[in-house]
Amino acid sequence: MKAKEVIGLLEEVRKTRPLIHNITNTVVTNFTANGLLSMGASPVMANAPEEAAEMAKAANALVLNIGTLNREQVKAMRIAGKAANEKGIPVILDPVGAGATAYRTETALALLEELDVALIRANAGEMAALLGESGNVQGVDASGEADNPKLAKEAARRFEVIAAVTGVEDAVAHQGEVFIVQNGHTLLTKVTGTGCLLSSIAASFLTVQHSAGAVAAALAYYGAAAEIAGSLTTREGPGSFQIELLNALHATQEMDLRHYIRVKQES
Amino acid sequence: MKAKEVIGLLEEVRKTRPLIHNITNTVVTNFTANGLLSMGASPVMANAPEEAAEMAKAANALVLNIGTLNREQVKAMRIAGKAANEKGIPVILDPVGAGATAYRTETALALLEELDVALIRANAGEMAALLGESGNVQGVDASGEADNPKLAKEAARRFEVIAAVTGVEDAVAHQGEVFIVQNGHTLLTKVTGTGCLLSSIAASFLTVQHSAGAVAAALAYYGAAAEIAGSLTTREGPGSFQIELLNALHATQEMDLRHYIRVKQES
Amino acid sequence: MKAKEVIGLLEEVRKTRPLIHNITNTVVTNFTANGLLSMGASPVMANAPEEAAEMAKAANALVLNIGTLNREQVKAMRIAGKAANEKGIPVILDPVGAGATAYRTETALALLEELDVALIRANAGEMAALLGESGNVQGVDASGEADNPKLAKEAARRFEVIAAVTGVEDAVAHQGEVFIVQNGHTLLTKVTGTGCLLSSIAASFLTVQHSAGAVAAALAYYGAAAEIAGSLTTREGPGSFQIELLNALHATQEMDLRHYIRVKQES
Repeated sequence: MKAKEVIGLLEEVRKTRPLIHNITNTVVTNFTANGLLSMGASPVMANAPEEAAEMAKAANALVLNIGTLNREQVKAMRIAGKAANEKGIPVILDPVGAGATAYRTETALALLEELDVALIRANAGEMAALLGESGNVQGVDASGEADNPKLAKEAARRFEVIAAVTGVEDAVAHQGEVFIVQNGHTLLTKVTGTGCLLSSIAASFLTVQHSAGAVAAALAYYGAAAEIAGSLTTREGPGSFQIELLNALHATQEMDLRHYIRVKQES
Repeated sequence: MKAKEVIGLLEEVRKTRPLIHNITNTVVTNFTANGLLSMGASPVMANAPEEAAEMAKAANALVLNIGTLNREQVKAMRIAGKAANEKGIPVILDPVGAGATAYRTETALALLEELDVALIRANAGEMAALLGESGNVQGVDASGEADNPKLAKEAARRFEVIAAVTGVEDAVAHQGEVFIVQNGHTLLTKVTGTGCLLSSIAASFLTVQHSAGAVAAALAYYGAAAEIAGSLTTREGPGSFQIELLNALHATQEMDLRHYIRVKQES
Repeated sequence: MKAKEVIGLLEEVRKTRPLIHNITNTVVTNFTANGLLSMGASPVMANAPEEAAEMAKAANALVLNIGTLNREQVKAMRIAGKAANEKGIPVILDPVGAGATAYRTETALALLEELDVALIRANAGEMAALLGESGNVQGVDASGEADNPKLAKEAARRFEVIAAVTGVEDAVAHQGEVFIVQNGHTLLTKVTGTGCLLSSIAASFLTVQHSAGAVAAALAYYGAAAEIAGSLTTREGPGSFQIELLNALHATQEMDLRHYIRVKQES
């Protein structure tokens, strides 16, 4: 994939300013909203069953993130998900901590069963848990030397979705297509919610083009922004990196991205 | 309005350190608390119906923000609001996303009906929605070229409150008085919760003086801090701006503000 | 206590990367998670009664923070606390705002009654409230010239816990041992959640060694990081300090700490 394609999709996101409805965990609401604003999308959070359907119908994409799930919120996810499916906007599932508790794994699987999900964005441990494989998740962080392309392909086939497994190298799979994204920075693992924000950014790209390529472009843009942020972070400080990442998501222009994007397509 | 009056009210806030009880959305809790601390007020958050009345009675002002409302929280808002009214402390309503869903619009109107609200702080789309006018709200951001003074005057009359409509130019109306505040910075629209924090800062100023002028002073102080923050933000980074805004709310001294404050009073 | 001992415990935390299960308030979730990641521990948040026990059993320590408590969350605290006790991992109580409302004081006391709590970390006003003494809490901030060692000793005896009372000088008491920690920085009072994060950091140290000394070491490390952060913060900006604190928690190396640690042991 050429940097030009990534930039084209990003520019389209910025032009259309899609409204992203996030039903997400209480740890990352602020960072997710700020990241979406920095990129140029419009965030909205709404968790009440009373308004979940109406908000989803006003939105351009819906992100369901189970990072601090509870009964009321899962109820709202179901309602919003059905409304999103009816309207035909993409539904993104971020199964945070799947495998860590049965409640998370079962809720994620139930949502996949009931809803028409466009994209699952997860780390290797979470995706393995959804696939019923040994999902040893230490906290909510990615870990280990998993085979991301294999997991992505299997999830794409099993759940009939675009599947993105992110880690040191990200893999995006859908109907035979597989993209490998080599952008990113180790400090992403030192800031909470960087995966959650990535799911919402991928949602934004999906509003422009419904394809595995658009998700790979979102991952490459985000990883490139992280690299730019990392290069501006002195003494590897996670606090500064978090701020520079928000800056980079906003500032990234065509010139910068051309030097960074590293996406391969497998056959 | 002279910079001197704004500074006098700010100094009084800092001297009295009012306790601001916020029942607010999960996106902005941290930023609101940090902004109030930076200015020199004391924040407290308490959402449980079990303690809402007691906390409101211990506070100097109560802020009700419907940004991620739910049934339990609205119940707590009612209880806290009644306690605040009994004690005679100002109740501030921030109708985040009014017009975006019926649940938000109706809840905001019900709170206005049931409680004695001192101040509504909203953007043009939200205020128009409360007034039953075409409230097209894109996400929770201000937008468009609304007639803020007209909306503020109408809301002030209709709801018998001080009404503040914020945007490129802010308008504050109350019983014939109208203030126009020309302070602010475009980066405020790139950071989530800047409007929510402003509502809590206006609440702090109301604890010192119950008037439209005090609200205009709060808006001018906040807008001036944003201008100072903007001038210290390199490459227009929204991440850095957020941090510089917290710094500026704290650092703003008499000398700085004198150069910034731009408040006009209409007859 | 020698800097060497503090550094030894910190290195052990970083090596073992303990999983800290936080059931905490909505204001500080993000900052707590980022602070734990910066230090080198693994944070997880899980508030639903459905998964509280399973998550606690997967964790190395459990932190219960009542800063925005509600019925469902308190239910989850009880369930998680019992599971943590069964597994034998330390349970840390942060009684945020005890004394401010009866609901908070009573909930904190009930948790102390029902659970085997390893550590209470509180400011003087909160600890006094738990002890039934005049607990005038202005917001959720520490204040006044309380006798921290006396309060810590009394709480340690009464509740049979390690008791840490933090303020200008911190006191940690347990079974006759008393440590006084003189590290810290005034800007800690200008950023929300710095006390909450400290509780979670103390929890991490307790996973390495169950002693008052380990808690004192955690407080000294945190206070030293705050001093380093303060020295890097220009113009006393609370926004910048918050970021520098996260940086310092990560960057603090043996060399730095040696110059900072100030812990005395009373007989």
